[in-house]
Amino acid sequence: MNPTNENLPGLKEIEAASKRISGVASRTPLVESPALSRLTGHEVYLKLECFQPIKVFKIRGAYNKISLLSQSGVVAASSGNHGIAVAYSSRLLSKKCTVVVPETAVREKVDTIAEYGAEVVTAGRYSIEREAKARKIAEATGAAFVHPFNDPDVIAGQGTCGLEIAHQLSDIDAVLVPVGGGGLISGVSTALKAIRPETRVYGVEPQGAPKLAEALKAKKVVTIPSPASIADGLIPSALGGLTYEACSRNVDGTFTVSEEDIIRATRTMIKEARIFAEPSGAAPLAPLLSPSGVIGRRVVLVVSGGNLSHELLAKLLSP
Amino acid sequence: MNPTNENLPGLKEIEAASKRISGVASRTPLVESPALSRLTGHEVYLKLECFQPIKVFKIRGAYNKISLLSQSGVVAASSGNHGIAVAYSSRLLSKKCTVVVPETAVREKVDTIAEYGAEVVTAGRYSIEREAKARKIAEATGAAFVHPFNDPDVIAGQGTCGLEIAHQLSDIDAVLVPVGGGGLISGVSTALKAIRPETRVYGVEPQGAPKLAEALKAKKVVTIPSPASIADGLIPSALGGLTYEACSRNVDGTFTVSEEDIIRATRTMIKEARIFAEPSGAAPLAPLLSPSGVIGRRVVLVVSGGNLSHELLAKLLSP
Repeated sequence: MNPTNENLPGLKEIEAASKRISGVASRTPLVESPALSRLTGHEVYLKLECFQPIKVFKIRGAYNKISLLSQSGVVAASSGNHGIAVAYSSRLLSKKCTVVVPETAVREKVDTIAEYGAEVVTAGRYSIEREAKARKIAEATGAAFVHPFNDPDVIAGQGTCGLEIAHQLSDIDAVLVPVGGGGLISGVSTALKAIRPETRVYGVEPQGAPKLAEALKAKKVVTIPSPASIADGLIPSALGGLTYEACSRNVDGTFTVSEEDIIRATRTMIKEARIFAEPSGAAPLAPLLSPSGVIGRRVVLVVSGGNLSHELLAKLLSP
Repeated sequence: MNPTNENLPGLKEIEAASKRISGVASRTPLVESPALSRLTGHEVYLKLECFQPIKVFKIRGAYNKISLLSQSGVVAASSGNHGIAVAYSSRLLSKKCTVVVPETAVREKVDTIAEYGAEVVTAGRYSIEREAKARKIAEATGAAFVHPFNDPDVIAGQGTCGLEIAHQLSDIDAVLVPVGGGGLISGVSTALKAIRPETRVYGVEPQGAPKLAEALKAKKVVTIPSPASIADGLIPSALGGLTYEACSRNVDGTFTVSEEDIIRATRTMIKEARIFAEPSGAAPLAPLLSPSGVIGRRVVLVVSGGNLSHELLAKLLSP
């Protein structure tokens, strides 16, 4: 359970994952949003991970990981989306599944986890608490603990998103990826730098949880004491050792965005691009809505998920 | 412009269309909705055409058709979704595009058509008026008129949805397809009957526009004088000669659903299945929400589109 840097997946592992998840995860659309291009002055393309079968990219990593396990049971700790992915994949692969969620999880996400047949256990507010609980259950039951990001097979799975981007569009100046524990950006940046080394990859994270920005500055994993954001997929306390290593090799920089920026980005994604993104998935739009200038002309935003609460959606739709 | 029955596409034409649209249209997810299964007592699978790049199946037929045209311009008449598909495809294929829409079109759909660079022209309320206008423009400019459904290449394109269903899931008892002009159900039923002849295919249409039910009864195309429904994709005045012929060969029956049923289905699709379907796309759920018993256990609903107005969405989200 202590992966070393030699475990970091490369293009070969990502391509193998791509074959493994084919028919389960979607090759999601990569489309220009003329409305966002007009609004921002960039050429804005959206990689619509919110159109995955479970409306979030996490299906890529979870299915790749779980399909390789010999254990008949799996346990996950998740603020929602990883749990949905593990529950959904476990159901397809006929594994018994338990998901530990925080007290603060979005209700719609918890409902979805339960619908896919997983047992839902509640534990605390922070990722550290639920991970401890999940590891305890794994130890007691012999089930495999599936980490949401710090796992080579999970990172390789998420990397298939970057593989698709590299094959779907050329002349990309920059790809903006939301950063939770760093699994998605680790995989995406690994794939992109292998195929299109000229494309810059940036992380986007909330001011309340700048794990990647702080880690790149300190040149090591940094733990944020009380991470908080409306972007509930982006608030683990820290990167993992593996995701830190992948990011330090392949990520060109980060944007730290305020809560106000994230809400504005989510509203704009829904009202202007007409894509129902959750705050974590809309966050990569935030840097384009403020003057920046360093990003380049043709920009891909990874819209990582669309599991937003109906309460928030109703609020954002009101004039 | 007067296609005969020999023009009806078969499996071979649908498979050719599938290759042609690959990389442009998505192979959309076909997923079980545990919430809808529990609610209805069926095993409910959703074919999520609302996850196409333009959030509607029409990209399949439009791109297949337009990629075969020699003309440099195209003209379409559309209540919205066909127009989005023609505009989007024309942009990718570098064709000049004009779309004629009714005065009553959903604002979000008209905005999207314009964003993709098409010229938008308004004409009347009914499909007959806008088709006449569009054909006039085509004649005057030498552009190709792209019919929304009564065209073999359009039907073959829509059929790729059925081809995918047949390859994604086995032991399907029934597939429920919303019926506008009949292009989607013609293609889907042709593909399914060729590969899985035991699967029953049913059309679902509003009480205010029972074009297919009336045509199957009269054994010929029947024109509905003033078609009306909140399901704005399902209200052409009549099937075409080609779609009537395909349906009379391959469709097993129809369900006619009330406006109340359609609204309830849309609300249930959004609130329970958490899929943002437009009323036309949610309509296939309506028969499952009323006692029926004739449909079978494993049922696929073709969720044809997700371009719903934000005004309606806000209304449906309120308690």
